[in-house]
Amino acid sequence: MVNIALETLELKSEPKQLYDPISYIIKLGGKRLRPVLTLAAYDLFGNDHHEALPAAVGIEIFHNFTLLHDDIMDNADLRRGNETVHKKWNPNVAILSGDTMFALAYKQMLSVSPALLADVLETFTQTAIEVCEGQQYDMDFETSALVTIPEYINMIRLKTAVLLGCSLKVGALIGKAKKEQAQLLYDFGVNIGIAFQLKDDLLDAFGESEKFGKSIGGDIVANKKTYLYLKCLEVANTTEKVLLTNLFDGEKNSETDKIKQVLSLYRKYNIRQETADEMEKYFSNAIDKINRLGVSYEKKTALSAYAEWLFKRDH
Amino acid sequence: MVNIALETLELKSEPKQLYDPISYIIKLGGKRLRPVLTLAAYDLFGNDHHEALPAAVGIEIFHNFTLLHDDIMDNADLRRGNETVHKKWNPNVAILSGDTMFALAYKQMLSVSPALLADVLETFTQTAIEVCEGQQYDMDFETSALVTIPEYINMIRLKTAVLLGCSLKVGALIGKAKKEQAQLLYDFGVNIGIAFQLKDDLLDAFGESEKFGKSIGGDIVANKKTYLYLKCLEVANTTEKVLLTNLFDGEKNSETDKIKQVLSLYRKYNIRQETADEMEKYFSNAIDKINRLGVSYEKKTALSAYAEWLFKRDH
Repeated sequence: MVNIALETLELKSEPKQLYDPISYIIKLGGKRLRPVLTLAAYDLFGNDHHEALPAAVGIEIFHNFTLLHDDIMDNADLRRGNETVHKKWNPNVAILSGDTMFALAYKQMLSVSPALLADVLETFTQTAIEVCEGQQYDMDFETSALVTIPEYINMIRLKTAVLLGCSLKVGALIGKAKKEQAQLLYDFGVNIGIAFQLKDDLLDAFGESEKFGKSIGGDIVANKKTYLYLKCLEVANTTEKVLLTNLFDGEKNSETDKIKQVLSLYRKYNIRQETADEMEKYFSNAIDKINRLGVSYEKKTALSAYAEWLFKRDH
Repeated sequence: MVNIALETLELKSEPKQLYDPISYIIKLGGKRLRPVLTLAAYDLFGNDHHEALPAAVGIEIFHNFTLLHDDIMDNADLRRGNETVHKKWNPNVAILSGDTMFALAYKQMLSVSPALLADVLETFTQTAIEVCEGQQYDMDFETSALVTIPEYINMIRLKTAVLLGCSLKVGALIGKAKKEQAQLLYDFGVNIGIAFQLKDDLLDAFGESEKFGKSIGGDIVANKKTYLYLKCLEVANTTEKVLLTNLFDGEKNSETDKIKQVLSLYRKYNIRQETADEMEKYFSNAIDKINRLGVSYEKKTALSAYAEWLFKRDH
C-alpha cells in the first residue's frame, strides 16, 4: 500500500532539476519501516487505514529528505546501492530538492482531519527538530574526543528512534487513540528504535557480511564511535584504551589489520554480549509499553511480531 | 514587535553548532517586511495582533531559512554585511541549521487556533514549495541561453512574490477575514512582490549607489538575467543582441567597461522607462486588489502607504 502510494505520488514535472531527484530518491525503495509503523499503529484503533496513508507517506518523504541531506553532509557516494542525489546531480540540487521534500511531507500531513491536525503536526514538527539535533550530535561526535554512552544513546534516540516513535504516535492519533495510548506507542517506537540502532552497531562488527549486505567492520574503518566502541573504551585497561583511541584516530593502519585488532578487543571484553544485553533492555522496555496499551492480544500481534523481527534480524 | 519577538525567541542552546547559527542569522536583522505584512493584514480584520505574532515570526524564520540555503547555493560570502553561515561555520552546519529553521517555522505556525490551522498551513506549505521552485528556476536561468520575460516574471513571482502574498493572507486568515478578502490580499502581495523585484533590478542599474547600499551594476557584472537585460534583448537589433549576449557570457571585459556598454544599450532602448512601466502595471494591479477589499479607507492606509514606500524607495 505504501509503495503504491509512493510510486503514484503526483509530483510536478517542472522544474526538472527540482522534481527529478525527488522522484529518484523516493523510488529507490527501502524497508518503508516508518509508514508501515504508522499504518500498524492506526490499525490498533481505526477501521480504514486509508485514513492514515497520507500521513504515513508524509513521514516516509520526510525520512527520505533527511537521508538526502545527510548524504551531502556525510559525503556519501551510494544510497541503497545507487548514486546519491548530490553525486548524480550536484550538492545544490540535493539541498533544494531536500527542502522541497520537507514541504511536501507537510503537504501530505495536511490531509489529516482538522480536529487532529494540531496534535499530529506538533508531534511531527517536534520530531523533525529532534532528528536535526541528532544528526548534529552525530557529526559533533566524529571530532569529539570524549563521548559518553548516555550521550551516544541520546544521539541515536534523536537521530533514529524518535521518528519511529512519531510514526507510531501519528498513526494512533489518526485512529483516534487516547493520548496515553498514543504516548505508549511513541515510547514503544523510541525503545525499538534504540534497540534497532544497537542491532545495527552489532551487525556491523559481528554480522555475516553476505546477510548484512555491507562489509563487516565498516563502522570500525570509518572510526565511528558506536556503542561497541564506547563500551569497550569504558571497560578496557589503560593500555588498551590508548590503543583503541589511536586505532580510531586516523587512517594509520591497514583496514584488515585495524578491524582485526578492534574485534579482538571487543571479544576480550565480551562487547558482543554487553551490546546484546543493552539492546535486550530496550527491546523489553518496548514490549512493556505495548503490553500496557489496553488493546486485544490479536490486534497487537502485528506490532510485536514486527518488533521481534527487527530485533532478531541478522541483516 | 517583530524584532522583540525574534530577539526573545526561546532557542535551545545545545547542540551549539545547530542553534548558534540560527540565533546568528535571526539576529542579523533585515527589514522584517514579511512579518510586518502579516501583522498589517491581520490589523485590517482583528483587534489583537498578538494573535498573529507567532505566525508572523514563523514566516520570518522561514524566510531566513531560505536565505541561509540560498547563500550556500549562490556561494555568497556576505549577508546583510556579515559573514554568511556557511562561511562563518561550514556548509554542513548551514544545511542542517536551515533544515531546523524550517521546522521551527512550522512550530511557530502551530500556535494558530485549530479552526484556522489547516487553511493557514495549506497556504504556507504551498508557498514554501513554490519558493523552492523559484530558487531552482533562478539557478536554471544562470545557464540557460534563452529566458523569456514571462519565464522571468514567473521565476520572481515564485522566488519572491508568493511569500509576500502568503504573509498577508496568513495575517488575514488569522484575523478571520473572509476567504475572498484573504485571497485579494494574497494577490496584492504577489503583485507588490513582483513590482518590488523589478524595482531592485532597476535600482541595480540606475540607482544612486550611496542610497542603494550596493555598487551599481552588480547584476551586470554577475551576468544576472534581470528584467532590464531580457527586455533589452527583446528590442535590440541583431548586432546589439549578439553584443549583449556576449557581454553576459563570461568575464571577458573589464567590469567598468562592461557596465558602461550595457547601460548604454539600456539607455538607447529606454529600458529604464520600460521597466518602470512594467513595475507600475504590477503596482496598480496591487492597489486595485486592496481597493476591492471592502474595508474602510483608514484601515487600508497603513498597507497602501507601505506599498507606496516599497514602490517609491530609492534604496
